[in-house]
Amino acid sequence: MNLKIAVLPGDGIGPEVIAQAKKALYAIGEVYNHEFVFEEALMGAIAIDKTGNPLPEQTLNLCLNTDAVLFGAIGDPKYDNNPNAKVRPEQGLLKLRKELGLFANIRPIKPYKALIDSSPLKREIIDGADFTIFRELTGGAYFGAKTLNEEGTHASDLCEYSEEEITRISHLAFKSAQNRRKKLTMVDKANVLETSRLWRKVVQKVSLNYPDVVLDFLFVDNAAMQIILNPKQFDVILTENLFGDILSDEASVITGSIGLLASASLGEKNALFEPIHGSYPQAKGKNIANPIASILSAAMLLEHFGLFKEANVIYQAVEKAIEYKVVTIDLKADSKFGTNEVGEFVSNFI
Amino acid sequence: MNLKIAVLPGDGIGPEVIAQAKKALYAIGEVYNHEFVFEEALMGAIAIDKTGNPLPEQTLNLCLNTDAVLFGAIGDPKYDNNPNAKVRPEQGLLKLRKELGLFANIRPIKPYKALIDSSPLKREIIDGADFTIFRELTGGAYFGAKTLNEEGTHASDLCEYSEEEITRISHLAFKSAQNRRKKLTMVDKANVLETSRLWRKVVQKVSLNYPDVVLDFLFVDNAAMQIILNPKQFDVILTENLFGDILSDEASVITGSIGLLASASLGEKNALFEPIHGSYPQAKGKNIANPIASILSAAMLLEHFGLFKEANVIYQAVEKAIEYKVVTIDLKADSKFGTNEVGEFVSNFI
Ligand SMILES: CC(C)[C@H](C(=O)O)[C@@H](O)C(=O)O
Ligand SMILES: CC(C)[C@H](C(=O)O)[C@@H](O)C(=O)O
Repeated sequence: MNLKIAVLPGDGIGPEVIAQAKKALYAIGEVYNHEFVFEEALMGAIAIDKTGNPLPEQTLNLCLNTDAVLFGAIGDPKYDNNPNAKVRPEQGLLKLRKELGLFANIRPIKPYKALIDSSPLKREIIDGADFTIFRELTGGAYFGAKTLNEEGTHASDLCEYSEEEITRISHLAFKSAQNRRKKLTMVDKANVLETSRLWRKVVQKVSLNYPDVVLDFLFVDNAAMQIILNPKQFDVILTENLFGDILSDEASVITGSIGLLASASLGEKNALFEPIHGSYPQAKGKNIANPIASILSAAMLLEHFGLFKEANVIYQAVEKAIEYKVVTIDLKADSKFGTNEVGEFVSNFI
Repeated sequence: MNLKIAVLPGDGIGPEVIAQAKKALYAIGEVYNHEFVFEEALMGAIAIDKTGNPLPEQTLNLCLNTDAVLFGAIGDPKYDNNPNAKVRPEQGLLKLRKELGLFANIRPIKPYKALIDSSPLKREIIDGADFTIFRELTGGAYFGAKTLNEEGTHASDLCEYSEEEITRISHLAFKSAQNRRKKLTMVDKANVLETSRLWRKVVQKVSLNYPDVVLDFLFVDNAAMQIILNPKQFDVILTENLFGDILSDEASVITGSIGLLASASLGEKNALFEPIHGSYPQAKGKNIANPIASILSAAMLLEHFGLFKEANVIYQAVEKAIEYKVVTIDLKADSKFGTNEVGEFVSNFI
């Protein structure tokens, strides 16, 4: 197979972990005779620094015209505490999601056997947990109208959803549930929010097409509790953008480290793969960032193109790295292995 | 002291747990020579059933003219999955919060030593955790304009905040931090939301009055993770309405049961006290609901009126109940004690 892949390393530890994902893909290409052509481009704080624009025209065009996007991380503290900054790194990512129409963000959560004891949760709570979060990615308060009055004393964010936006991701989530344990939990705040009531109505409608899937509902406050109290109850979780952002980061604790979780963002035509961790600026350049999430994004990319065998080899390599404790310090405080070494181990295993 | 207390048992297990809180207050009144006059009124699904209105005029007037409100729980599943219901129980509570101006909801989180092992989190993670969440309670998406178009295919919720709304709760939170470990963590999503950026700006401004308090910031997705990974890092958490709803329920897992957590909702003139758990309709009438959260709300009420000694006696009684395992089944699966027995134990201890 020939694939043209746009690579956006982004900010903070992004470049370091993306380098390891590329290494893994190169190795897969060699062994299984695929040609992956990578083309790098700027996005995020680094793009602002170099071009003034968090998503330069050139980057967007590249992404629109490649088979897939491999993305690192975004964000720089110098923008976070400056409420007056006009341009922010995150705008680049949000615009990219919107322009590529990446409406579904998919985050699988499943602890590694060998790491179960590194979770803050007790073994019996998480052993056997295995669920996937479907987060709507191009709607809600992220993209609604924002206002700030002239005096800077009053602000607003509008959360909007349409039936169509809810329908398309619901189909993906129900299909995924059909291939799994046939349970879908819709998370919302329908006792308070109008958009949540629309979600509930539309999801109930879509569910009629999937009579073999059991549908249930949880309020988001309760869901935030249940994910920790009893994660094994979940199979597929479906939710809107902001709730998905919060719950999927929360759920990462089940695996012991956010450095282990990858995500796929899918649209009609395009697809983007990224680790769910952020730019982690404190770790930048220190060779301590965990590259596994980024490497697993590459595996999700392969799966997306039907290369299941190849993806599996990556999953196995990662499992071996974990088993042999070739991991970064987030997983083993006294580890002598860094970002590079873990990446090397994985690509050598392939 | 003479106190006139409006009692709103509400829905589900509300009446059962409120009865135990009243018992505790009666006992305190007798022993310490206070006169607590209780007046009951309807709110929630039960008020809709009886009057068509989740917050009848009479209830509101009573609450406006008493020293404090003791509230049980609200909500009934028959409204939750009916996106077309015009009147909902929750509207009663939201309207009450708004009319009484209860802008600050305060939720202390601290595990009981004797219960540490009943948390899904490991002992070493939670032992020593002790923080308080200040949740803004009368603004944000809960109260902003809501729309649903005629075809029922498009909905919106508006999240709004003003400098004034942020300032008043920030002062309370900073003052609380001054009396604690002098750290305040503001939780928001300032990399995406305009309202969050306003929060950040205003909180930074207010912080100048409290130079002895260390202020830091977390994005809400990261906060949802940190509360589980390392709850001991927190002292006071300050956040907006919806984030506070999610994070405070999530944080309840630290204590092992949401049935242990009480909250105070404060305004300029009024105050309301309630358990943070919901109406838990599955448990209604079974004498299995945990009354401790409700009893602790009564203790928070006493503290609010400066009756610290009396509040302390309740805290001690609850600790004894837990120590002697006179607890409901959420805390001890094979317990033979029910709601009533736990309530009796506590009031007898007083
Ligand atoms: C960087 C930020 C805008 C982003 C989001 O909130 O969507 C991130 O937290 C994520 O989850 O991908
Ligand atoms: C019942 C509901 C409206 C309420 C809320 O979301 O505020 C509850 O969850 C709470 O936290 O008090």
